This record gives sequence, C-alpha cells and structure tokens, in this order.
Amino acid sequence: MEYRKIIKDEDDDHDVASDLESLKGKSHTVAASSNIALVGAGSNERTNWKRKGVVTCALTILTSSQAILIVWSKRAGKYEYSVTTANFLVETLKCALSLLALTRIWKNEGVTDDNRLSTTYDEVKVFPIPAALYLFKNLLQYYIFAYVDAPGYQILKNLNIISTGVLYRIILKKKLSEIQWAGFILLCCGCTTAQLNSNSDRVLQTSLPGWIMAIIMALLSGFAGVYTEAIIKKRPSRNINVQNFWLYVFGMAFNAVAIVIQDFDAVANKGFFHGYSFITVLMILNHALSGIAVSMVMKYADNIVKVYSTSVAMLLTAVVSVFLFNFHLSLAFFLGSTVVSVSVYLHSAGKLR
Amino acid sequence: MEYRKIIKDEDDDHDVASDLESLKGKSHTVAASSNIALVGAGSNERTNWKRKGVVTCALTILTSSQAILIVWSKRAGKYEYSVTTANFLVETLKCALSLLALTRIWKNEGVTDDNRLSTTYDEVKVFPIPAALYLFKNLLQYYIFAYVDAPGYQILKNLNIISTGVLYRIILKKKLSEIQWAGFILLCCGCTTAQLNSNSDRVLQTSLPGWIMAIIMALLSGFAGVYTEAIIKKRPSRNINVQNFWLYVFGMAFNAVAIVIQDFDAVANKGFFHGYSFITVLMILNHALSGIAVSMVMKYADNIVKVYSTSVAMLLTAVVSVFLFNFHLSLAFFLGSTVVSVSVYLHSAGKLR
Repeated sequence: MEYRKIIKDEDDDHDVASDLESLKGKSHTVAASSNIALVGAGSNERTNWKRKGVVTCALTILTSSQAILIVWSKRAGKYEYSVTTANFLVETLKCALSLLALTRIWKNEGVTDDNRLSTTYDEVKVFPIPAALYLFKNLLQYYIFAYVDAPGYQILKNLNIISTGVLYRIILKKKLSEIQWAGFILLCCGCTTAQLNSNSDRVLQTSLPGWIMAIIMALLSGFAGVYTEAIIKKRPSRNINVQNFWLYVFGMAFNAVAIVIQDFDAVANKGFFHGYSFITVLMILNHALSGIAVSMVMKYADNIVKVYSTSVAMLLTAVVSVFLFNFHLSLAFFLGSTVVSVSVYLHSAGKLR
Repeated sequence: MEYRKIIKDEDDDHDVASDLESLKGKSHTVAASSNIALVGAGSNERTNWKRKGVVTCALTILTSSQAILIVWSKRAGKYEYSVTTANFLVETLKCALSLLALTRIWKNEGVTDDNRLSTTYDEVKVFPIPAALYLFKNLLQYYIFAYVDAPGYQILKNLNIISTGVLYRIILKKKLSEIQWAGFILLCCGCTTAQLNSNSDRVLQTSLPGWIMAIIMALLSGFAGVYTEAIIKKRPSRNINVQNFWLYVFGMAFNAVAIVIQDFDAVANKGFFHGYSFITVLMILNHALSGIAVSMVMKYADNIVKVYSTSVAMLLTAVVSVFLFNFHLSLAFFLGSTVVSVSVYLHSAGKLR
C-alpha cells in the first residue's frame, strides 16, 4: 500500500484560495463589461491565463514534492501508519482550510448567494459520487495486487491518462483536436517510457483479470476526475471553497467508511495515530494542499491540464531526486521526458480555434 | 562489424525502375498541359503520389527483409566474409541493374538528352562526394568501437534521424512545419525506445570522444543522404538510371579503395569470395535493390520519407521476427512503436500548406 493512494481530487488552500478569489472577483467585473470594451476582454483573458498558470504550477510543484516525500519516508523506513486514517485526516484538513478561506471571504465581501455555505439537495446530491468512486477504486487496489506486482501497477496506472482523455471527451463533451489526441497518446507512452526498468517487461505477462481490473481502475479514476470537473463547472459563479467544502465533507465520510472496512482492528488496537512521524504530518499537509490545487485546476482549467501537470511533476521529481537522493537517470527516462515535452508542445500547438 | 554498414544510399531496379520510368513519362505529358487543365494537374498529383507510394513501400519492405537476413545470417553463424568485398559487389550489381534498365529504356524510347549515358564534367563532378562521405564514415566506424560497444552504437545511430532533418533543412532549404519537427524528434525517441534493453543505459557512460565521433558519423551519414538528394533533384528531367549509374560507378571506386585499406591481406590470402554463402548472395541482392529503392525515394520523394520508411521497416522487422525467430517483444518496443506511429501521423498532419 502506498501513501499516494490518498484521494487527491478535491480542494482549498487559504492563501492561494483568497488570492484566486480576489482575481475571480476582478475577472467578473471585467466580464460584465467585456461585450463593450475589447480591452476588457483581453484583460479578462489575461487574468484567466494567470489564474490557470498559478494553479497549474502549484499543482505541479505540490505533486512533485509529494513524490519526493514518499521517497524520503521510504528511505527513512517510516511507513507504519495506517493509510486510511491519513486519508481521513487529509480530507479533514482540506475541509478546515476551505472553511478558513470562506470566513475570510465572508469578512471581506459579505455573505452572498455564491459564497454562502448552505446548499440545496439539488446542488449537493452529486457531490458524494467522486468520493464514492475513489473509495471503490482504493478497495479494488487491494485485489489487483494478486495479479500485478507494485512496479507493474505503477506502469498500468498510466492507463489513467488515456481513460481521463476518453471520459473527458464523452462526459464533458469537450473536443480535443487530432493533434491534441496525438499528444495525449504520447503523454501516456512518454510517462510509461520514463518509468521503464529491467523488470518492466513482466507487466506484459499480466493475466486477463489483472488487465480488466487495471482498466476498471483507470476508468474509475478517470471518471472520478472528470465528474468532479463536471460538478465544479456546473455552477461557474459558485464559490470554489463552498464546492470544495461539500466535496471534502463526503470525502471525510467515505474515508471513515474505509477506516472501518480496512483498518478497524489496527486502529482499535494501536490507536488512530500509531506510526505517525514528522514526515507523515508533512505528507498529510502536502496531500491536502495538492488536493486543493487539483480542485482549483478543475475550476479554472480542466482535467487535461491536471493530467499534464501531474505527469510533468513525475519527471520533475526524478530530476530533483538526482540531487536529493543520488538517483540515477536512465536512458529510458531521457527518452520518456523528451516524448512528454513534445506532447506538452503538441497540446498547446494543437488547440482548436 | 555488421553487414548493415553497406552503403545503402544509391539506386536502380529493373522492374520497378521501368514501371516508374513509364509513370514518369506519363506525368511529364500531363505536366505540360497542367497549366491549362486542372483535371490534368490532379491526375499528375495522383501519379506522383502513386510513384512516391510504390518506391516508399519498396524501400520499407526491402529494408526490413534486409534486417531479417542479417538476423538469419547471424543465427546461421555465417559471418566470415569480407564486408568490403560485399559492399563492392553491391555497387557493381546496382551499376549493372542501372545499365539493364537503361538499355530497355533506350529500346523503347530511343536515346534522348535525358537518358543518354554520356555526361559532362559539370554534371558528374559532384557525384563522387556521397560515396566519399560514406567511405569516410565507414572508416570512422572502426574507431568508434574503441569508445562504444555494438549495442550502444546501434542506439547512437538514431542520431542520424536528427542530423538528416537538420541538414535537409540547411542544405536543401526545405522547410518542415513545427508539428513535423515535433514528429521528427519523436521518430528519433521512438526508434531508440523500441531498441531499449537492459544494457542500453551503458550508452550514457559514453566518453566525450565517443559522443563526438557518434555525432560526426551522424552528420556524415545525414550529409551523404541529403547531398545525394541534392544531386539527383538538381536535374529533375534527367533519367534516374543515368544518375544512379554514375553514383554507383563512384561507389564501386571508393569501395575498391576500402578493400585495399581494410581487407587487402584477407582478400589476398583467402580470396575475394572467402566465406560467401547463399545468405551472403541474398544479402548482396537485397542491399542492391534497397540501394536502388533509396535512390528512387530521393528522386520522387525525399530524405525525410526515406528516414520514416527505414524506421518503420525496423519496427516491421521486429514484428516479423516474432514469427520467424520467436523473438520476444518488450514493453519498450510497444511504447517505441506507438511513438513512431504517432510521429508518422504528425508528419502527414503537419504538412505546410
């Protein structure tokens, strides 16, 4: 079991969030007058780009520091805590941060229809779905290891990239150009290539049930991501912190269920915080912030940007690890990184007009 | 030393060649009236495409059967013949085939300015250059093995792809679009990825002189290819068989020099045909036909098409080898092949209007 599995698809950070909220307020004012003034439209677009850039960079940096913390914690040999309790704490922290950001916003802007916490059944009824999908995926994860070893699973996880692209097209009905699809296939190939090692070929011997489970898990993960974007984008003017708050409340609830199903005995006997260390706390903090960054990317960009950002983060991690842990970069890594870089270029060059 | 090193950048096949010549005659007639009739221009373009397609497919099939013959000859353990004498015979065979094609053409069309064998100093003065470049490259090859092992050299040879693209741009002044450049970088990465194995990382330890020699060899090889295209395209109406004849005459001459430099003792003591087997004869035949196909591609398409065609051939070879020799395809091969396929798509999708 790896800490990575912590749900990382929701959000709220207090500094970034309130900065972004103020940006958002600005862009709304501009949007109102954009039909009249072309200059206004330009500035609106610039603001959108700036916001998109900030959240994307935040996600990339947080994701790569996440992976570095994982390596660090493995090296330190501290890996004894319960993953489900850590997941639960991540959700709780995200919830708390969302509330904190909201109280600031209420103080500055007053309570409005868009930023009030109270909600309707119609708004909130879809919020449990992503959390439920992740719970289901995490439970499946226990069973896939009967068919695939851990390094093989890391490789099969790259199927998420393809499933996200396909479901993004089907569910959100957003079109990617042919060049962008080419880029997306390359992203998947490039990430997998960068992870190749001498044992990778074993994954080709995966049995049919293993493949089916890997594909189902990729679909669940892609579906959860795309569905979160659909929920968040459904009400564009609704404050992201309120949307996050409700997403995370259900995240807490479903992770509580996971504790009961998977770790009840361990928690009952050894206590909730057994095995927690300084690194564990850092990892929980990092995951909470990454989760918030993911939500921000869903709100202000999309799942495709999220996938690119986390893929580039994986490469950054490896480069940073060379300096931190004396990692050795393989030829496969250089080739994969080049393919991923070309893919990023193609995604931008292939934009539909 | 591998048989692959045989010069494979010149041309003339008698069947394909005469077919192509008749196609060429047709397209000329059409070209003359194309300013008037748009339908004529369309049919001209179709003819060009058909011819381009035929020579490209021929090159792909010949190149992949070439690699299969190499594997076959290695398995059979017959690898005792002198490579330089085989190279010389390839050039001689190509020369003979060019003459054969020409006699047919003379019989059918009579001798014209475009198909007469006699030449001028002005036309012929540049013809020795590609052959000289290849000779120089093949000599360098002996020295690079002091710095790089054979599998490492196979990987470094993929630098040819990049050098060909760069020199094609500089010398022939033909532009590739940005998307096509992206495709070209991917072609290099994809081919290298497909060849990865557990020892490939050793190539990263190549010393500076090794890298410099590899780059020089890539430049020599790219330059020879691009220069051949420049020579052949300089006189578009000149019969390709005449151009080939002169190219191959110099090829024979330079390979005779190579025999003297590299294998004089062996040939003098053991004889010219020592170690030749049935497979050797097949390989010489195949190399002669491939060489002719390369020249045809230079005349009717370009170096970029040639590089794509030989790269796709490499992948085809591996797939065919699964059936013929029970080869095992690696995950890296699948990833590399996918990247190469996307690259082929990008080359066509990225065409400059």
